[in-house]
Amino acid sequence: MTATSLDALQRLLPEGMVVTDPDVTDSYARDRTFCAPGTALGVVLARSREDVVTTLRWASEHRVPVVPRGAGTGLAGGATAVEGGVVLSLHKMTAIRELSPADEIAVVEPGVITADLDRAAREHGLMYAPDPSSYEISTIGGNLATNAGGLRCVKYGVTRDSTLGLEVVLADGRVLETGRRTVKGVTGYDLTGLFVGSEGTLGVITAATVRLRRAPLVPPATVAAEFPTLVSAAEAVAAVIAAGCQPSLLELLDRATLKAIDDWRNIGLDPDTAAMLIAQSDASDGQAAAERMAALFEEKGASFVAVSSTPEEAEELIGVRRLAYQAKERLGACLVEDVCVPRSRLPEMIAAVEATAARHEVPIFTVAHAGDGNLHPVFVFEHGLAEPPPHVWAAADEVFRAALDLGGTLTGEHGVGLLKRRWLDLETSPVARELQHGIKQVFDPLGIMNPGKAI
Amino acid sequence: MTATSLDALQRLLPEGMVVTDPDVTDSYARDRTFCAPGTALGVVLARSREDVVTTLRWASEHRVPVVPRGAGTGLAGGATAVEGGVVLSLHKMTAIRELSPADEIAVVEPGVITADLDRAAREHGLMYAPDPSSYEISTIGGNLATNAGGLRCVKYGVTRDSTLGLEVVLADGRVLETGRRTVKGVTGYDLTGLFVGSEGTLGVITAATVRLRRAPLVPPATVAAEFPTLVSAAEAVAAVIAAGCQPSLLELLDRATLKAIDDWRNIGLDPDTAAMLIAQSDASDGQAAAERMAALFEEKGASFVAVSSTPEEAEELIGVRRLAYQAKERLGACLVEDVCVPRSRLPEMIAAVEATAARHEVPIFTVAHAGDGNLHPVFVFEHGLAEPPPHVWAAADEVFRAALDLGGTLTGEHGVGLLKRRWLDLETSPVARELQHGIKQVFDPLGIMNPGKAI
Repeated sequence: MTATSLDALQRLLPEGMVVTDPDVTDSYARDRTFCAPGTALGVVLARSREDVVTTLRWASEHRVPVVPRGAGTGLAGGATAVEGGVVLSLHKMTAIRELSPADEIAVVEPGVITADLDRAAREHGLMYAPDPSSYEISTIGGNLATNAGGLRCVKYGVTRDSTLGLEVVLADGRVLETGRRTVKGVTGYDLTGLFVGSEGTLGVITAATVRLRRAPLVPPATVAAEFPTLVSAAEAVAAVIAAGCQPSLLELLDRATLKAIDDWRNIGLDPDTAAMLIAQSDASDGQAAAERMAALFEEKGASFVAVSSTPEEAEELIGVRRLAYQAKERLGACLVEDVCVPRSRLPEMIAAVEATAARHEVPIFTVAHAGDGNLHPVFVFEHGLAEPPPHVWAAADEVFRAALDLGGTLTGEHGVGLLKRRWLDLETSPVARELQHGIKQVFDPLGIMNPGKAI
Repeated sequence: MTATSLDALQRLLPEGMVVTDPDVTDSYARDRTFCAPGTALGVVLARSREDVVTTLRWASEHRVPVVPRGAGTGLAGGATAVEGGVVLSLHKMTAIRELSPADEIAVVEPGVITADLDRAAREHGLMYAPDPSSYEISTIGGNLATNAGGLRCVKYGVTRDSTLGLEVVLADGRVLETGRRTVKGVTGYDLTGLFVGSEGTLGVITAATVRLRRAPLVPPATVAAEFPTLVSAAEAVAAVIAAGCQPSLLELLDRATLKAIDDWRNIGLDPDTAAMLIAQSDASDGQAAAERMAALFEEKGASFVAVSSTPEEAEELIGVRRLAYQAKERLGACLVEDVCVPRSRLPEMIAAVEATAARHEVPIFTVAHAGDGNLHPVFVFEHGLAEPPPHVWAAADEVFRAALDLGGTLTGEHGVGLLKRRWLDLETSPVARELQHGIKQVFDPLGIMNPGKAI
């Protein structure tokens, strides 16, 4: 790769589409993690599938690494720039090519902001279910790359569960269509499922056919409760699931998170509270479901239970959850983690996190999508450091190992990226690794697609 | 491959596990299609993962094709014996290794009958959702191989949506674990999804970790209605979905099917009826949902609407659906097909089937999982023929092409097997085919796993 060959790409693409000004390219070098980026030769601001084809043909010819990128909100370093490569930003491909209320599908380009798709669907009484916490700022393309989850996925599933088909540009510039427009179909291997969660290492998604669902007919009803012990909160989670309440959201905030929120906003927290649960139901009989969940929370020992009776009250109760991340950001730089365990192991996992925090003297604040067993322990350290100091990594290492020991996984919804590759061997067997690298070789024989990430 | 090498396998496995008696092996040579089998050297009746490992190591060493087989209820020839190969039957691996109500998962061996798993789950207030019509006689392994659907999948999704992880023996005898025990997880490529629906061409599944769901708390409420036109029935389907009624079953029977049932059992059919819809709701407010669906059916022009008010009445209304297949079998040999179209194209698809039936003078009877746009046109021809005569294939060809023209797929839930390979190129692009064969090569470089099937 030489400056001359980048010139060639600049000539092939519309003027101004390849940016080399370091002030600009630097802002495309990182996502929201602490992974040190390489120096990219340039950033391509693609506007169409053809721009992607042109870029990948050129990259194949010149053996240039390509890092696909959405909005850069990732939390695992999947979009970190690679030395001597180009960043291929898809954030300007924002067309909703089609939205069919009759078939409950949409065909969208990767740069569409997730919440924008959801809003477009709601104009037709539909919704796009996956709602990662970043969904007002992250793109569908990024969500597909990481198989993003979210709060609603306890009821509606993750991004893969809403993806029917893809248009992908392969490393050599060929265009592949996967999947279908129908809700069912079993012709051939599931290439769609393979691309979802592959973090840009197999090709560049330039459009997705996604499934929409009926939007709830009434605003959700919310219930919040404080628990004196982790075990009682976990039992309440299990009871809610076992009773078939089908919450559309079931979140847990640990003691450290609640204290951080209370210190900041004075929510009148009982100092004996070990955990708070916040649940919603968006069913047509949601108010009854919320009341049923409240009764179960009380039965399991909640010290304080509140049920919303208006949409405003529902918003107020969920408000505490929305403060969680900001309350931590005030205290320092945040390493946001993402382990997932079988739901029954939730109290053990939180206890392990608390023990690790004490042992390493690292403040760790945990919010969990409790209904899925998916925890986000946030490790807080001194602002201004280029990356987490060794004792934070040591604590994170313990947390990852504890999750795996409990039958869990390193990452529920953020992806492996660059950040977690060094723990990958703890979860993935040599046989599985060999097969994954074999698949990678089939799709990207030159190894130019987001090298060093995910697998 | 020689008789000597089969002797070697017989010595490696417990006595009696390798069967070569042609009277027995013949009964393992076919599934429920008309695909002509090759002559297998023998049938292995595996009882454990170790038996599978032994068989595949031996098969790799001697380059012997292996056809994995469940209960042989497949409808696409996926389990058809291959000349000079062995059939590896998994139907004796019937252990439910684990059933965890707390985590709502089960770990099951491939020979477990699907309905048996569902019954085991119901003892704990849970259910196994996928319910192909064969579920009293088909196995989990076969369901996984074809990514089976069923009636309930309009609400609960297909087999893949209930599969969290797999234990697989690869072609060379190595054991691979895929996926996880958690409901979410994004570590590495989705090998689990790749195996589901791969029809035994990538390896042999020896256990699956499946997701269970809460069983409904009340018996389902059923509504049945007769419609004077296909379009009015299709509009009623759309209205039910658009109103958010969330049926747990939404079936359509066409005019030919209804007439066959009426001729046989005299159900008092109005001769002007073009289609019948049968819907169920298993929600906690299911009776209200059924009443709502009934009102929508009436609004869309149904000539006769009945809603169950007791479980017995619900069974009676669904009974007509259960008669559909037998009513056709009386009339001749049946080629059961499985196209799927976007839901909005359902009336056009049924009209295309009717036109084909008239043009080729082939009786075609269609039952559809209408909520999914998945149709099963059944082509009836003379009993006793070894395979469908040319005019039946010509009619089937037209139906497949019509489904693809309407944005649909060749197979919603039965698989490609041997039967539909000759139409595969109409749906799958050369690029996709090349990638699928590349993946096959990674998992099975010697090409011994169920050769000639699926891709």
